[in-house]
Amino acid sequence: MPLPFRHITLLGIGLIGSSIARAIKARDATCILHIIDPLEDALHEAEALGLGDVYSPGFDQDHITDLVLICTPVGAMEAALKDIATHVSPGAIISDSGSVKAHVARLMASLLPEGLKPVPGHPVAGTEQSGPSAGFASLFQDRWCILTPDATTDPDALQRVSDFWTALGARVDTMSAEHHDLVLAITSHLPHLIAYNIVGTASDLEQVTQSEVISYSAGGFRDFTRIAASDPTMWRDVFLHNKDAVLETLGRFQEDLSALARAIRWGDGDALFTLFSRTRDIRRNIIDAGQDVAGADFGRTTPAEPEDP
Amino acid sequence: MPLPFRHITLLGIGLIGSSIARAIKARDATCILHIIDPLEDALHEAEALGLGDVYSPGFDQDHITDLVLICTPVGAMEAALKDIATHVSPGAIISDSGSVKAHVARLMASLLPEGLKPVPGHPVAGTEQSGPSAGFASLFQDRWCILTPDATTDPDALQRVSDFWTALGARVDTMSAEHHDLVLAITSHLPHLIAYNIVGTASDLEQVTQSEVISYSAGGFRDFTRIAASDPTMWRDVFLHNKDAVLETLGRFQEDLSALARAIRWGDGDALFTLFSRTRDIRRNIIDAGQDVAGADFGRTTPAEPEDP
Repeated sequence: MPLPFRHITLLGIGLIGSSIARAIKARDATCILHIIDPLEDALHEAEALGLGDVYSPGFDQDHITDLVLICTPVGAMEAALKDIATHVSPGAIISDSGSVKAHVARLMASLLPEGLKPVPGHPVAGTEQSGPSAGFASLFQDRWCILTPDATTDPDALQRVSDFWTALGARVDTMSAEHHDLVLAITSHLPHLIAYNIVGTASDLEQVTQSEVISYSAGGFRDFTRIAASDPTMWRDVFLHNKDAVLETLGRFQEDLSALARAIRWGDGDALFTLFSRTRDIRRNIIDAGQDVAGADFGRTTPAEPEDP
Repeated sequence: MPLPFRHITLLGIGLIGSSIARAIKARDATCILHIIDPLEDALHEAEALGLGDVYSPGFDQDHITDLVLICTPVGAMEAALKDIATHVSPGAIISDSGSVKAHVARLMASLLPEGLKPVPGHPVAGTEQSGPSAGFASLFQDRWCILTPDATTDPDALQRVSDFWTALGARVDTMSAEHHDLVLAITSHLPHLIAYNIVGTASDLEQVTQSEVISYSAGGFRDFTRIAASDPTMWRDVFLHNKDAVLETLGRFQEDLSALARAIRWGDGDALFTLFSRTRDIRRNIIDAGQDVAGADFGRTTPAEPEDP
């Protein structure tokens, strides 16, 4: 599928931006890709990796492009949009990859002038690694990209952004920004918060040494450390800008956890067994939906004969 | 390294028991392996897979063996030890693979007669899959096996069980049963409890559909579903028999989580950033210690060019 844009500007060349750049170039080498990042190191790294065609720390005056895709942390988007409003020539579509949508949609609506067409979006993909070199072209393959149009969204712009993500291998869904933020609060933001929290709790236990936590992490803890190694700036911004939905789902989680603690305290084995049984199905469904691998331990323990029998 | 036992009896042929059986046979095909499981299906499956040499649903009278390794859920160990006390001939070493040690050590001390030598143990390894066919010979390779001797433990028996696990590829550590239960509460039991809990919370949210949770699970949630797919019986028994240490670490976790919720509510970005930054190191240490793979996303998203550019 050809890309629906001839000239694309990527603002922010971290894991997501650099993966988009690679996916674009893998599909259409003739697409002109302008990479902007105010961080000198990231920009130089992107240039060294040959991710785009033009590199600059900021927008030129009267910047002409078909699409600006903002791939910065959510907290940097207000400044980015003000910059775009000042410098980008009318007609361009302005989209983003932010993990929070109501906040971004509000910023776009209030900051962008008439001639620029906002289409807030969020590719639900990523890894725990950061920076231009961490990206790869297949990151979005079979993952979902959620677009959150409202009544003011230009239908043609929405269609082209949707076609763009489809061309990059993603499946596209649309929903309201508010619903997006609630869905992601439970499927992404709360899991990250909990992972950061338990790694913090483990580090602070004075009866258990750090070295013991590391040695015996294969019992389950190590799975949480992957998520807790994610980019701190990105995640700080997510929690600051999706406060209500995160606190709402966190409240539910804490209620459920208190009930579970009570079942343990009172030795209610049936309550534990009932919960532990019904949570198995959801994993099978996630694997069937192509959103995770079926191999035991994510395939990281390869069943194999020992090398030295 | 040769195995220090000629005749081994495995009681319980699930994921752990069948992995031990395969690891034994891969290293020493001449070792006589007697597999006992009261569950007819599991025993037949083990026999069909050719995991051992002798198969029976229970112990024969005057059962002669060098080592009995109990690989049942912790809740089944009391009955197993009574059975062993009645049927197993003096001189045998009695060990286990249970995830809880103080409870098991107490049972062994009170139920086993003089001539049988208890050595409580716990190989810190596993996957989310269950049953005889889920096992594999390399499950213990480079993982830790914790033995929890006390003043009454036979030193020679301890050494032989230690040599046995070393021969199977594991690293062996010893500590008190009480300390084991605290260390595992934070590195294994609490992570499982939290994973089960968040999957339950997500299933119960009435504003977000099950299908949305599944589709958008790549944002982080899917990592938790792996652990929450673990064997319900095994984990019910863990929580019932390591109550104090689990409730203690869970209390810490809940305190920390409340502080984090407060930071979000009041927009304290610095507090969030500080926590999110210090949790990165621990993952690097876990990878350096050989307890997890370094690949992004556990290596499950292989960086590759798209198939259809």
